[in-house]
Amino acid sequence: NYSGEVKKVTLIPGDGIGPEISAAVQKIFAAAKVPIEWESVDVTPVRGPDGKFGIPQTAIDSVNKNKVGLKGPLMTPVGKGHRSLNLALRKEFNLYANVRPCRSLEGYETLYTNVDVVTIRENTEGEYSGIEHEIVDGVVQSIKLITEDASRRVAEFAFQYTKEQKRKKLTAVHKANIMRMSDGLFLRCCREVAEKYPDVKFEEKYLDTVCLSMVQDPSQFDVLVMPNLYGDILSDLCAGLVGGLGLTPSGNVGINGALFESVHGTAPDIAGQDKANPTALLLSGVMMLRYMELSDYADKIEKACYDTIREKTYRTGDLGGKAKCSEFTDEICKKLS
Amino acid sequence: NYSGEVKKVTLIPGDGIGPEISAAVQKIFAAAKVPIEWESVDVTPVRGPDGKFGIPQTAIDSVNKNKVGLKGPLMTPVGKGHRSLNLALRKEFNLYANVRPCRSLEGYETLYTNVDVVTIRENTEGEYSGIEHEIVDGVVQSIKLITEDASRRVAEFAFQYTKEQKRKKLTAVHKANIMRMSDGLFLRCCREVAEKYPDVKFEEKYLDTVCLSMVQDPSQFDVLVMPNLYGDILSDLCAGLVGGLGLTPSGNVGINGALFESVHGTAPDIAGQDKANPTALLLSGVMMLRYMELSDYADKIEKACYDTIREKTYRTGDLGGKAKCSEFTDEICKKLS
Ligand SMILES: CC(C)[C@H](C(=O)O)[C@@H](O)C(=O)O
Ligand SMILES: CC(C)[C@H](C(=O)O)[C@@H](O)C(=O)O
Repeated sequence: NYSGEVKKVTLIPGDGIGPEISAAVQKIFAAAKVPIEWESVDVTPVRGPDGKFGIPQTAIDSVNKNKVGLKGPLMTPVGKGHRSLNLALRKEFNLYANVRPCRSLEGYETLYTNVDVVTIRENTEGEYSGIEHEIVDGVVQSIKLITEDASRRVAEFAFQYTKEQKRKKLTAVHKANIMRMSDGLFLRCCREVAEKYPDVKFEEKYLDTVCLSMVQDPSQFDVLVMPNLYGDILSDLCAGLVGGLGLTPSGNVGINGALFESVHGTAPDIAGQDKANPTALLLSGVMMLRYMELSDYADKIEKACYDTIREKTYRTGDLGGKAKCSEFTDEICKKLS
Repeated sequence: NYSGEVKKVTLIPGDGIGPEISAAVQKIFAAAKVPIEWESVDVTPVRGPDGKFGIPQTAIDSVNKNKVGLKGPLMTPVGKGHRSLNLALRKEFNLYANVRPCRSLEGYETLYTNVDVVTIRENTEGEYSGIEHEIVDGVVQSIKLITEDASRRVAEFAFQYTKEQKRKKLTAVHKANIMRMSDGLFLRCCREVAEKYPDVKFEEKYLDTVCLSMVQDPSQFDVLVMPNLYGDILSDLCAGLVGGLGLTPSGNVGINGALFESVHGTAPDIAGQDKANPTALLLSGVMMLRYMELSDYADKIEKACYDTIREKTYRTGDLGGKAKCSEFTDEICKKLS
């Protein structure tokens, strides 16, 4: 029985299946009596006074005020000059660490059992700097930008996370044999922060080696920290091991707040048909609750979700079942009450 | 019975286990009566007149003359200013396409059966440009360089390969949603070349998506072409699916010649103990024979190698067996005679 204040949380339902899986999460949170109040906002880009498209001010204000948000999948608007809205949000709120836990779901079979890894991805720079130029016709340069500040910040976050979550090991993933200066700087920052955490086991590995080893035996890894693009790649690889992006949560953590999101697509082909699996968004919500120090609620919801998947009867189509999104949702609610 | 001329091939035995696995390959090739003559060269960097270390001229001359080479693993010399010797060789001979087939070995069990993919990696530029600078203290830029020429060249190679080898599909792997100009250029070249190969099925996929899908079901992929770093990552991932770098061959193809190499390490811990598995180097040699249009010899050797592994009795330690390198080698020779 929670006696603190009811916190407001920004909800960005998103596009395609976004609204229906967001509604599912809201229903489940209500069934669990989670003491939060949703503030739903639309982030469809609007044309500003300068003629450029951007995230609506009301959405920005909501996240800045509430400092915590949950977000469904977003379509990237088509047309020149539009960059990914997902990236724009990470940038706008300076969400510097992207945390993606991947864990085998009991009873849901893939080739792997006992996957339990967390990728922590630098979320603001690297290959995602957006700086590119055509030097001469047919010769293009993209800049990978690595700074000491951002590298140290995400390294600090990763060591702190590994320690707090009582995980066993942190692996820094890099290609400093090739990008000696940039990945070298990233690695140096990890090493320096490592000295402040003598009780966290720390190792360094090449990205290619990690990919090879991960598919052979994921149990040799635990928490991993890396530059932006490597995190994009490795987190998807790990998601593949446990069943795909429909089952894995994600959190973008900043200095001033955090945005939790499912990272699967908008699935326009099944949108509005009550067929979508809300698990990734729900588990992202569970991560959010832990971030808000509402862990009791998080644990209860997580268990109800895992139990429902394990029991098989109410699995959605993507998991080989026949249940509608609403039936899966209702079963979780039933377990919670 | 071969009636052509005996061709000379440069052999770079390499470091660590390099010499013993090279000797194994030589023995097997001799047993198969392969009509080639080895020219063994040392590539240990020597200090030139300008004081800088470089590949010895005799080695360069040998490869330039013979135009075909086989290479064991090389140690990268320690110390500032030394770049990877493997990369130096790719650069020196302008070996623009790196081809790595990964196929499940019958009878050697991993989590996956029926893996049969080939990664084709642009081998000269991209993230491997070696151009990096520190802008100000703590801010580093690495340049990813993509040119139309190199992209078109490797795309041409990949389409030609897919067609000649009668493969089913070619996938271009990219992150053009993020690196719009550089990966965008690479992708545009692939699309343009695709028009010249209407009979080759062509598709485009994001690197992260490919990693996720690859670990879920590798059979959905066939030949894949991509920029340098992505090839480094994806080829290792695929090698992991079939048993690791000890089992997968690699070929670096240039305009003027080709260098085939095993891409595993030098394994100093077991060097000189007759324990190493020569399979990756042997299968690289098999690729080399096909490149030299000595396919009959290639087929025979490949079959003897696969049969020996399938039969289990003469497996080396890395495959869970007890055979020495020489016993494994002798068994293959026996099958060939
Ligand atoms: C949608 C895309 C821009 C994004 C990325 O590349 O980071 C996605 O793949 C992710 O991992 O969140
Ligand atoms: C040894 C290293 C420089 C090399 C690379 O990064 O290309 C290796 O990983 C490879 O794949 O051949």
